[in-house]
Amino acid sequence: MLTYSFADIGSDSLYGHLYKCIKNDIIQGILRPGEKLPSKRSFAKNLGISVITIENAYEQLIAEGYIYSIPKKGFFIADLRNRTGEKQPDLTAESIQMNSGEMKYLADFGSNKAVCDQFPFTVWAKLLRECLHDFQEGLLISPPSGGALELRRSIAKHLLEFRGMNVAPEQIIIGAGTEYLYGQILQLIGPDKCYGVEDPGYRKISQVYESYGARCKYIEFKKDGIDISDLEEQKVQVAHISPSHHFPTGVVTPISKRYELLGWASKEKERYIIEDDYDSEFRLTGKPIPTMQSIDTMERVIFMNTFSKSIASTVRVSYMVLPKHLVNRYYKKLSFCTCPVTTFIQFGLARFIDEGYFEKHINRMRTYYRKQRDYLLELINASKMAPYVSISEEDAGLHFLLYLNITCPDEEFKRRMEKRRIHICALSEYYENPENKTEHYFVINYSSLNEEQIRKAVKQLSEEVLLVKAK
Amino acid sequence: MLTYSFADIGSDSLYGHLYKCIKNDIIQGILRPGEKLPSKRSFAKNLGISVITIENAYEQLIAEGYIYSIPKKGFFIADLRNRTGEKQPDLTAESIQMNSGEMKYLADFGSNKAVCDQFPFTVWAKLLRECLHDFQEGLLISPPSGGALELRRSIAKHLLEFRGMNVAPEQIIIGAGTEYLYGQILQLIGPDKCYGVEDPGYRKISQVYESYGARCKYIEFKKDGIDISDLEEQKVQVAHISPSHHFPTGVVTPISKRYELLGWASKEKERYIIEDDYDSEFRLTGKPIPTMQSIDTMERVIFMNTFSKSIASTVRVSYMVLPKHLVNRYYKKLSFCTCPVTTFIQFGLARFIDEGYFEKHINRMRTYYRKQRDYLLELINASKMAPYVSISEEDAGLHFLLYLNITCPDEEFKRRMEKRRIHICALSEYYENPENKTEHYFVINYSSLNEEQIRKAVKQLSEEVLLVKAK
Repeated sequence: MLTYSFADIGSDSLYGHLYKCIKNDIIQGILRPGEKLPSKRSFAKNLGISVITIENAYEQLIAEGYIYSIPKKGFFIADLRNRTGEKQPDLTAESIQMNSGEMKYLADFGSNKAVCDQFPFTVWAKLLRECLHDFQEGLLISPPSGGALELRRSIAKHLLEFRGMNVAPEQIIIGAGTEYLYGQILQLIGPDKCYGVEDPGYRKISQVYESYGARCKYIEFKKDGIDISDLEEQKVQVAHISPSHHFPTGVVTPISKRYELLGWASKEKERYIIEDDYDSEFRLTGKPIPTMQSIDTMERVIFMNTFSKSIASTVRVSYMVLPKHLVNRYYKKLSFCTCPVTTFIQFGLARFIDEGYFEKHINRMRTYYRKQRDYLLELINASKMAPYVSISEEDAGLHFLLYLNITCPDEEFKRRMEKRRIHICALSEYYENPENKTEHYFVINYSSLNEEQIRKAVKQLSEEVLLVKAK
Repeated sequence: MLTYSFADIGSDSLYGHLYKCIKNDIIQGILRPGEKLPSKRSFAKNLGISVITIENAYEQLIAEGYIYSIPKKGFFIADLRNRTGEKQPDLTAESIQMNSGEMKYLADFGSNKAVCDQFPFTVWAKLLRECLHDFQEGLLISPPSGGALELRRSIAKHLLEFRGMNVAPEQIIIGAGTEYLYGQILQLIGPDKCYGVEDPGYRKISQVYESYGARCKYIEFKKDGIDISDLEEQKVQVAHISPSHHFPTGVVTPISKRYELLGWASKEKERYIIEDDYDSEFRLTGKPIPTMQSIDTMERVIFMNTFSKSIASTVRVSYMVLPKHLVNRYYKKLSFCTCPVTTFIQFGLARFIDEGYFEKHINRMRTYYRKQRDYLLELINASKMAPYVSISEEDAGLHFLLYLNITCPDEEFKRRMEKRRIHICALSEYYENPENKTEHYFVINYSSLNEEQIRKAVKQLSEEVLLVKAK
């Protein structure tokens, strides 16, 4: 009969040692497939250990598939293939871009990072502590797929007060970033539809749609928005636009164009407009413009916004407002989805809004951003490059366009600025269709910069402009 | 010239009042499309207000598209369509299932809710407060698309210590729940592939794949797993399985079958196995079984796990381990994605793992669940239904199978238990293919129940079994 020594088992348990011995013999082929193992009782007697120990070792071997049991017959060795060697990952740092997003620049005009010293850390620490204390049970119950009712109510109230939008909490779907919502829309409306995105525009939109296999058309963004005739010609069914503040040009779509687009969408049943309202809170002059959602009587508009700009992108909360018939479709088709935002943040954010912190934060940030913008504009106008620049769309949100009267190609100018450790993006980079490109416009996103960075950036920018002018 | 009265403007600003008057006249058609507005200077003089006020009103009207300006010529009324009436959402509570997931049952054998009084709220409150204090800047920097390096390092360390898996942090991708990861896999491997899921199985897997338009095949789960021949016959390219603990049967796939599956996957280049390890932490006897990922030398296995079972599903953190070539593809193809988990939770969870709280929590929960299970089994065995039941797969995780020797159809028995306010799911519900169904097995998920609920549930269950036996 099979015999193993229990003399030198170190810290192993008896059953653990026996398990290892048998497993080893199976792997090495000493015990052959189909071979019968001793019965528990006789094996225990032979080895001088308890039946329980044998039983435990056999159970572990069964669980791992090394042996199998046939009732009333006994235990047998399973048929294994050769076990292969242990795997060693040999990933090199170079093979993977694990950039942690840390600032490598003197100033980054492309970043959407929130300003660290303006973030209300203390308020959030307080609110999260309160929520963990007050809502224990609630925090552990899975919310509906559209998100916790508490947060949806807070957002509905906010939309009514600040955007004049009259929506039911049920129409609001919470997501972990707008990308998640693009994916939800795709599932809701169908990956077989043709999605139209603005050119130039926010590249990620088409990336998400395309990576799920949907067709995307790039629609030229003209002076005041996209043209209906282009949508018709390209057979677009879903138009994804940002009428309140187009990225990257900053253009606000006029109301006449908005009605035209609503007219286009109303013509056919499965046409929709996705209204991306991403930084409307930071319009710096005048009253906010009514959303397309609020003038849509045909249930064609899906409104979308995010707290990425108004709180921080790393909080990862966004939401969309669905028209009624899509709400019903959502619950029919996608109620199996689990809301991707942790309840901890959903409850915390609801309090942040309800207790007035959100409004205060936005007001403070608006003042802060206005000051930053004014400072930046003042420095540009006082700099030596002033005769060669012009500014546009500076009122609409957290970025504006800087036109440089130079002949140096955008790519080269960008590279030259990189050497000066200034990250700046040209408007031309955002075009898919090269025919539409306009050169020498640069997108100036100033929301992440402090005064020192602004000073340094303008100095470097001005020096470079004068250099390329002198060439 | 156009004249408005400023006599009765209430709390409006001068410019706000003027803006409203002009807008009103445009909407009512008093001012016609193309009509020229007075110049700012002459209008100001006429109304007896400042040029700045006129300018502000005109700017607002331009921003909203009611008027447009032609440089050197002046301001003109835009061409609007008829404004439609205000929209009133008329959603009725009935039309939307906004169930907040709250407990309506005496006991719910289908719930995966974490037990409230076992959740380490105080630890989490402490860790989140610490993170908000210590990592301010880090919390606001967007992590790489795969997640914050801090958390990926902690998980890699955990996998090495508790699963013997040797993986680089770069191979780990963080997601907000496994659904998110299914979507990522679909984008990575392609929605044009054929995905094989276990039948019976966790329904959500195929729902996610199918809602993105991918083909899904239901592969019969036999005694010890799915058969290679079925995968070949159905032309499956990606097999999504849970070898450590199949849901809902609880079966552990033996190692011989695991090698067979790896053999199947190695035969063709774009074949993959998704190894869903969702509650392996709670195996109640024996050592954990080696994962398929750790014996895969051909880079065919995508390993996946979640903190839903081991912490709470509402924390919404899951992860997958990609084989090396897929890591590179991930960064090439999907680095535009933003990690959907807020940095607040990522940093908090990293500390939870690093400081040993996770291990302690799992150990405490394992003991707790074992106690619950033993109590439940004890009550079942002591109950009057004992002669008519048998239990299987009770060691593998947080659920087991209860076989009832009754003739009453599963659906009817379930309905009868609903009336007693006990939610119980039959194994037969989890089958897609009715041919494979076995009746009279019930899935007993005991992780969310306290002792009182267990007592009540067994009493009700036993009474009903005796009733249907007596029929």
